[in-house]
Amino acid sequence: MRSSVPLKDAYRLINHGPTTLVTTCEVDGSKPNVMAAAWAMPIDFEPARVAIVVARGTLTRTLLETTRELVLNLPTVAQLDATFAVGSLSGRDVAKWTTYGLEMEKATRVRPPLVKGCAGWLECVLMDEEPVRERYDLVLCEVVAAWADDAVYFGREWHFEKRPEMRTLHHLARGTFFATGERLEAKKPEK
Amino acid sequence: MRSSVPLKDAYRLINHGPTTLVTTCEVDGSKPNVMAAAWAMPIDFEPARVAIVVARGTLTRTLLETTRELVLNLPTVAQLDATFAVGSLSGRDVAKWTTYGLEMEKATRVRPPLVKGCAGWLECVLMDEEPVRERYDLVLCEVVAAWADDAVYFGREWHFEKRPEMRTLHHLARGTFFATGERLEAKKPEK
Repeated sequence: MRSSVPLKDAYRLINHGPTTLVTTCEVDGSKPNVMAAAWAMPIDFEPARVAIVVARGTLTRTLLETTRELVLNLPTVAQLDATFAVGSLSGRDVAKWTTYGLEMEKATRVRPPLVKGCAGWLECVLMDEEPVRERYDLVLCEVVAAWADDAVYFGREWHFEKRPEMRTLHHLARGTFFATGERLEAKKPEK
Repeated sequence: MRSSVPLKDAYRLINHGPTTLVTTCEVDGSKPNVMAAAWAMPIDFEPARVAIVVARGTLTRTLLETTRELVLNLPTVAQLDATFAVGSLSGRDVAKWTTYGLEMEKATRVRPPLVKGCAGWLECVLMDEEPVRERYDLVLCEVVAAWADDAVYFGREWHFEKRPEMRTLHHLARGTFFATGERLEAKKPEK
């Protein structure tokens, strides 16, 4: 079940550095596209903000600059092949959703869709920060809604132990990924 | 053994989203400091560039703005408690290196030290991008040297299978981390 995550906790969904799927669409909601992006991270707690690198020339970049909205989806081990595929090919050349078996659901605050079966979702609106986008392809966004599958996110934390197929992914390069691994608790530090 | 990583491959050291330790120092190399930063990612391949969030008011931020250099170190499972400790307390209040058993080694291209025992290291120089640093604490850097321990990084990839204590860390929140997990190979996509 998809449950709402308070915006102040949105960073917790991607704090561990998972690879993401970025969904975008036209202003009228048509032509939804999906692309993989390993370079995404939180940049603030409240307001919840994220930074994502989206290369110029991609369909995703064109669509997000037009609509000024995107969703950061957190794909799972079960979506490994699809994640690599949508990161390797362009939505201009391939019907990504049907070819790679990805399904969409309606988001709540933005027009691009959520990718069904992901572990978490951040609905995002672009911030007015053109210079770094132009110079470094660095897209700064505010998170306006956050969701997680409550099979693996509860008590304000990820818990993948019982659902290994829902572990998030961490891309190394060229289709080699790591799953999110063993949970470790650090000792509370003493001064 | 620490081996040099070609700059064009520097992104591969942090592409999987590990938590980092940021080292900084005064202009004359004195007062080396170390802080944890989970919000770090590559932003470009060539030139190799990274973005890191370093909160204003921290000693690390003061030092990096003074010296304009930092090292991104990639701590391991063996360094779990120290990683959390140096991310929770300020170098203004605690002698972090001695208190948490961290040792340093000389970097090659920058003045801040490398943290001994880490899995990888990116020696970085600040880029002239003050506006996003001022507005979002977002520090953009160019990587000028990269290193990895060849026990776990070889053939241009991380290999943690035989050295679990050298797996990198992924911070969730408040001292809960994930180790880098199982290696997965995605199927080459077909159009």
